[in-house]
Amino acid sequence: MDFNEKKVSSETVYSGKILNLRVDRVELPNGNMTAREVVEHAGAVAVVAQKEGRLLMVRQFRYPVGKVLLEIPAGKIEKGEDPLLCAARELIEETGYEAGEMKLLLSFFSTPGFSDEVLHVYLAGDLKYRGQKPDEDEFIQVEELPLERAVEMIGSGEICDAKSIIGILAVKSELVSLK
Amino acid sequence: MDFNEKKVSSETVYSGKILNLRVDRVELPNGNMTAREVVEHAGAVAVVAQKEGRLLMVRQFRYPVGKVLLEIPAGKIEKGEDPLLCAARELIEETGYEAGEMKLLLSFFSTPGFSDEVLHVYLAGDLKYRGQKPDEDEFIQVEELPLERAVEMIGSGEICDAKSIIGILAVKSELVSLK
Repeated sequence: MDFNEKKVSSETVYSGKILNLRVDRVELPNGNMTAREVVEHAGAVAVVAQKEGRLLMVRQFRYPVGKVLLEIPAGKIEKGEDPLLCAARELIEETGYEAGEMKLLLSFFSTPGFSDEVLHVYLAGDLKYRGQKPDEDEFIQVEELPLERAVEMIGSGEICDAKSIIGILAVKSELVSLK
Repeated sequence: MDFNEKKVSSETVYSGKILNLRVDRVELPNGNMTAREVVEHAGAVAVVAQKEGRLLMVRQFRYPVGKVLLEIPAGKIEKGEDPLLCAARELIEETGYEAGEMKLLLSFFSTPGFSDEVLHVYLAGDLKYRGQKPDEDEFIQVEELPLERAVEMIGSGEICDAKSIIGILAVKSELVSLK
């Protein structure tokens, strides 16, 4: 089956700080025309960091959803930045821990129906405390949780963002391990 | 710790078919001002549908990422639509199967750093074939996969969107079951 959609024209309707929005006119496989709204994002990283069987989590306000969420450490990739180095940087900024080992767990599209955002999730171990270095405008509280408790909190809805659910369930399912 | 950010002003920069974009000026807990870009989305559903130990999956082109992805059936919630009824509707439209049983597995924010999108993932069983009813402009191919194969395909990156990874790993981890 031919699935491809061909771009006919493209208009950037917004260029911002963390995202751009463009609206493309595309031709569908049956020849019909439609519009596709695409949120362009530079990508992000997240880290499942384990310290003696406990996960490092961060609590912070997420303005778009109007709630304080408990998540694994994460952040946006800066222009040209290597995702692995970005993950190491975000882990130390947000939690104060430096990882002696780090490995890609998986990469995923957060919402491929309207955005190109890719999220790379890393597994981090051999953690040493070096001191937290949050950005001046970041308000973050670090918490430690046993893996099994984090899995329960996914079931109860207390952990409820895609990257944290994916990182924690991937580790629980032993998709990848550090050893 | 006070985490909250206060909205000072709000401007809708785009109102579209599947999303709106607004840019708010907000006051941070330290009194500094910043901008928050928020993609408003009506929410979506996805369905982990099992038929004799095999998952119903759909292959389709995802324009924002420029790739054909293999995903669990899913779709946007129409204005005022009940998410459970939306999940039942999307399952039959995309795969042709009607579910005798359906249960909420979990709900999550796909990307709370820039969007309010919530995704509700349902578990469906007791499937009966009634005939596929895709929208005229949807091009979808149905595939069936054993659960263990789907888990492997998450590990290999062949299944790579948040809702499918979450639905499959949640079932694999037995977070919720139909019985």
